[in-house]
Amino acid sequence: MGTMKAIVKKYPRKGFVLDTVEIPEIKEPNEVKVKVLNASICGTDLHIWKWDEWSQGRIKTPQIDGHEFVGEVVEIGPMVKGLKPGDIVASETHIPCGVCKQCKTGNMHVCKNMQILGVDRDGVFAEYVVVPEIVLWKLDPSIPREYASVMEPLGNAIHTATAVDLRGKTVLITGAGPIGAIAVQVAKISGAATIIVSEVSEYRIKMAKEMGADYIINPLEKNLVEEVMKLTNNDGADVLLEMSGNPDALNSGIESLTNAGEAAILGVFPTNPVPFIMNTAVFKGIKIHCITGRKMFETWQIASEWLRTNRIDLSKLITHVLPMEDFEKGFELMNSKKSGKIVLKISE
Amino acid sequence: MGTMKAIVKKYPRKGFVLDTVEIPEIKEPNEVKVKVLNASICGTDLHIWKWDEWSQGRIKTPQIDGHEFVGEVVEIGPMVKGLKPGDIVASETHIPCGVCKQCKTGNMHVCKNMQILGVDRDGVFAEYVVVPEIVLWKLDPSIPREYASVMEPLGNAIHTATAVDLRGKTVLITGAGPIGAIAVQVAKISGAATIIVSEVSEYRIKMAKEMGADYIINPLEKNLVEEVMKLTNNDGADVLLEMSGNPDALNSGIESLTNAGEAAILGVFPTNPVPFIMNTAVFKGIKIHCITGRKMFETWQIASEWLRTNRIDLSKLITHVLPMEDFEKGFELMNSKKSGKIVLKISE
Amino acid sequence: MGTMKAIVKKYPRKGFVLDTVEIPEIKEPNEVKVKVLNASICGTDLHIWKWDEWSQGRIKTPQIDGHEFVGEVVEIGPMVKGLKPGDIVASETHIPCGVCKQCKTGNMHVCKNMQILGVDRDGVFAEYVVVPEIVLWKLDPSIPREYASVMEPLGNAIHTATAVDLRGKTVLITGAGPIGAIAVQVAKISGAATIIVSEVSEYRIKMAKEMGADYIINPLEKNLVEEVMKLTNNDGADVLLEMSGNPDALNSGIESLTNAGEAAILGVFPTNPVPFIMNTAVFKGIKIHCITGRKMFETWQIASEWLRTNRIDLSKLITHVLPMEDFEKGFELMNSKKSGKIVLKISE
Amino acid sequence: MGTMKAIVKKYPRKGFVLDTVEIPEIKEPNEVKVKVLNASICGTDLHIWKWDEWSQGRIKTPQIDGHEFVGEVVEIGPMVKGLKPGDIVASETHIPCGVCKQCKTGNMHVCKNMQILGVDRDGVFAEYVVVPEIVLWKLDPSIPREYASVMEPLGNAIHTATAVDLRGKTVLITGAGPIGAIAVQVAKISGAATIIVSEVSEYRIKMAKEMGADYIINPLEKNLVEEVMKLTNNDGADVLLEMSGNPDALNSGIESLTNAGEAAILGVFPTNPVPFIMNTAVFKGIKIHCITGRKMFETWQIASEWLRTNRIDLSKLITHVLPMEDFEKGFELMNSKKSGKIVLKISE
Repeated sequence: MGTMKAIVKKYPRKGFVLDTVEIPEIKEPNEVKVKVLNASICGTDLHIWKWDEWSQGRIKTPQIDGHEFVGEVVEIGPMVKGLKPGDIVASETHIPCGVCKQCKTGNMHVCKNMQILGVDRDGVFAEYVVVPEIVLWKLDPSIPREYASVMEPLGNAIHTATAVDLRGKTVLITGAGPIGAIAVQVAKISGAATIIVSEVSEYRIKMAKEMGADYIINPLEKNLVEEVMKLTNNDGADVLLEMSGNPDALNSGIESLTNAGEAAILGVFPTNPVPFIMNTAVFKGIKIHCITGRKMFETWQIASEWLRTNRIDLSKLITHVLPMEDFEKGFELMNSKKSGKIVLKISE
Repeated sequence: MGTMKAIVKKYPRKGFVLDTVEIPEIKEPNEVKVKVLNASICGTDLHIWKWDEWSQGRIKTPQIDGHEFVGEVVEIGPMVKGLKPGDIVASETHIPCGVCKQCKTGNMHVCKNMQILGVDRDGVFAEYVVVPEIVLWKLDPSIPREYASVMEPLGNAIHTATAVDLRGKTVLITGAGPIGAIAVQVAKISGAATIIVSEVSEYRIKMAKEMGADYIINPLEKNLVEEVMKLTNNDGADVLLEMSGNPDALNSGIESLTNAGEAAILGVFPTNPVPFIMNTAVFKGIKIHCITGRKMFETWQIASEWLRTNRIDLSKLITHVLPMEDFEKGFELMNSKKSGKIVLKISE
Repeated sequence: MGTMKAIVKKYPRKGFVLDTVEIPEIKEPNEVKVKVLNASICGTDLHIWKWDEWSQGRIKTPQIDGHEFVGEVVEIGPMVKGLKPGDIVASETHIPCGVCKQCKTGNMHVCKNMQILGVDRDGVFAEYVVVPEIVLWKLDPSIPREYASVMEPLGNAIHTATAVDLRGKTVLITGAGPIGAIAVQVAKISGAATIIVSEVSEYRIKMAKEMGADYIINPLEKNLVEEVMKLTNNDGADVLLEMSGNPDALNSGIESLTNAGEAAILGVFPTNPVPFIMNTAVFKGIKIHCITGRKMFETWQIASEWLRTNRIDLSKLITHVLPMEDFEKGFELMNSKKSGKIVLKISE
Repeated sequence: MGTMKAIVKKYPRKGFVLDTVEIPEIKEPNEVKVKVLNASICGTDLHIWKWDEWSQGRIKTPQIDGHEFVGEVVEIGPMVKGLKPGDIVASETHIPCGVCKQCKTGNMHVCKNMQILGVDRDGVFAEYVVVPEIVLWKLDPSIPREYASVMEPLGNAIHTATAVDLRGKTVLITGAGPIGAIAVQVAKISGAATIIVSEVSEYRIKMAKEMGADYIINPLEKNLVEEVMKLTNNDGADVLLEMSGNPDALNSGIESLTNAGEAAILGVFPTNPVPFIMNTAVFKGIKIHCITGRKMFETWQIASEWLRTNRIDLSKLITHVLPMEDFEKGFELMNSKKSGKIVLKISE
């Protein structure tokens, strides 16, 4: 048994506690015990750290936080078939039931009985975690461990961008937070001809530039639709990747699309319903792909291959690597919106 | 030259006038002169008849109304290659430019320079009409002429329903006006397992039943989402075909969908933007196909083949056939919402 | 423990033995013990019965034969999540490993480490069988048990036909054995406008007619390509479903296709390679879907829904229902090619 | 009228003649007269130069050869809508009828009544050519004219590669002639992770390397299937792009594919039928896209955008630029297989 360090939502209030807790053990024959090497901070973790309304309704304290990680398999249950101790793994954070209609027909990523790591059960900001084999993705050893924990948000970008064939297309990405920023690279690798980014934060505009955006428009300074039309000979963009969760970005994005264009929407909006120019979408005859999570595991396969062959460069996305103990600094940074992905080093 | 009878928007006010006007002549080498046999009344015609805000902004009087028709080719320009006098034709009502990006890449139905018959130029409620060859669709002589004028709205239903593979699916159709009603048949022919219709009007509920709907829910009497969940073992519908233009129907329809479901939206909503539960769509991971017009001419090909082989039965959709002179009665009927499609007999 | 009756390939020679063997027990926590109600005979079983070259190389005696079945769950392992005793189930006959690249990316039906029931391990022509939960498909109780054992070959037809959107299409089916025959119905339900069957056996021609084929051509009497061209106004068929495993049928089928047509090929040919008119396929720009097994479990979902809603009628496909003891008669019938599907009643 | 220089198949024997012929004039209102700037030599031209069996059956002398070109519009017919004198254009070489089923349903590239430039009518190895507007593709002026004439074969590579989503895929390209060579770049731009080329000629192996192939296998020296398996951890390639027209390459390529892989076949084989391992394809469950020509004009749109944004680099593909007068040297070079694309300068 023994104990381990973990970043715990110990009390129902803002912040986390670096605590000492019991090391979890394998209970089901299909489970795997993983030593966490690195973990990265997601926007969801920030919500839980802040203890906002959503967290108060969803999280039961005390609970270990975190879901993006890379680790080393240390023990396997007797039914585990594809992993062995010593394997390096990243992990889906969505644990599917395996038996609902979605799971049985190729849509495990929207399982009706989904459990989320670090939200519905103990997470990965800890020295060890136990998860079912089904969510683990074995890594090629050549992929650097710093990158591997961000395969999960990279997967969001890939899932969104691969909803559409981008070859030769003009792609508009609204929102260049970490996922939007890496989506710039994903779109480029996918064969996009021109990538336009809409973003208001100076920090993120800089990040988008470094990622290779061809044009960046600050919608506080210029009219997004007009600018896109100028850049596209008045045709409009072929594809919108909505990464901001901002209703204005969503609607300007749709308005910027060419007739028969496509939109892939990963952003989550502050209200539900949100005002949406559906008639415009109808008259343009566009297709809208609403995206959540990552395809299990088509998305992971693509991410792995691009990392293994050095087609994607995550170095510019990971702006900070901190020791586990400095988690508080990490959350403050994240909250300032002046960071890319922040990685916590958990174990050597 | 000579003159002909035509139903004309003569004055900028409610109603039409049965007038005598000049017979139009071929002016371009790719044009075709067609003797109109039958024409049917569309919702758009009703807007123009009522002279509502949209019509006042768009229609220039005097102009011949109407766009759904079947006719006989009487004369062809020197560049016409696929038609000859005597051919029976139906017609796309959207006249594409042929040279824009959309037209050049398989999306002529959302041409950027689209002209609409009876809206942007003289229409088909007249004994003769001249149109470019590109919009004409030659009919198998075995297809009854009464049916042929409604191939255009049938095409809307087919374009919407063929956006999704319906085999084995539970399909929810919101709105059973003429297009929604025929969509019931289209969904059945497409292999849907179960068809649920949401509709409030008694007349249309009856029409949907005759078309073969498995279940009909009146959302004024019962909660649509709850009823769909009951009928689907709590899974939700696989596919939504939105045909009502009602924001509540749209949102209840999305909420009724299973995770990874698909929606095809033909309805046009009273406001733009409309309140829309985008977050729900995102978390469910659904795909939304926004539909306008008909694919040129994939949709027509399907419609023709189903009519030619008697797979589709339009007899229940066409509830009234009137002489041209009784057009006023037709518009009153249409306005009462107590009709299916209304056909005007123009020539023998 | 106890014993049970089973149809066993006891000796490495033609025929089977109705034997008494030990009832199999659950060994892994994810396994399910099923009481077999009905089982049906497949062409593969006939190969094993005949003890042909393929069987001699693949089958290890003694082994229980059979893979198409419907049964009742009698016991479940501790990790089984979606089934309970009393559930009625049909079964995939392809047991996937769950961890290879194919299994992880939506292509479990072509798992690299596939085991086949009744081929690579004991089969289902026995009173009990133990299989992993992953292959079992829970049935709606309303589906008659006679039909349920043929859901597996029905699944082959559905997997083949659903490779292509058949709405409004002219479909050529080459070969009307049991799977080809039911494919006629599947094509019709899928919205095909016209179904042409190519078949040489009188028995099967009759069966195809009863299934609803619009035209049947006997290629021994008439030139298949010429006949298809006559029936299609010289355009050719839109879709070929190859179900015969006959090289002439394959090539005539490809030649009968319209430019940009599609072919789905389930047939297995007597030689590998087979002479194939690839240049014709290239110049026509056709798409060829090579089909094996059933999509797990998209295909099963469609089959279930069509059976549950009585859209498909299997009564004409099942031509014989025999007691288990008369298995020899069943194999003789099957061998004569004068049968549809033959069902063996195993338990009440 | 006047006269012009043209490379003419004057006599039914090997070779061409640089002749003086009449300048062609616009005869139909939809035609365009183009001053040819550059033209490039295609394998088809080489067949005609050699006067092989195919040419003898197809070509009627005297006829101007050539179909790949870039030119400047000098005159337009009265029905031409999208071009004006001075526009720089490349051209589809397949002239579709516009009215057949294929043309009306998005498959103009396999028109049933196709005419091919330089094969069925006078070609482009001349100072002027007259073609219908429908085949002309207006170029962004920034695209260098040397490149523009090879947009047609580049289009073949793009049409083939875009049949499959290549993101994260291991792509095997069999045959690195000019189209196969540029397909290496197209696959890379399309997001392929790993590109393996199979080629026997030293010249072409070098060209493939320069284009960015990750691995090149000479099947005369090593077993292609074994090498691909080694490079893919025994999984096989995800995608085959067959560009060689060699039956061994075709079959080894199929054998090298992973289960559920996809093949796109542009190669034309020396015999029809060709021996083909269809059973292997069936058991693997692969999809085969047979490719001819270019999608009109989706393929051209992609090519243009990649050229305009400098994503594709054609400089390594065009190995020789010769004055028109040196055409004989060009054909000898082409015949030696020691060249990439050869461009003839026709006018300034």
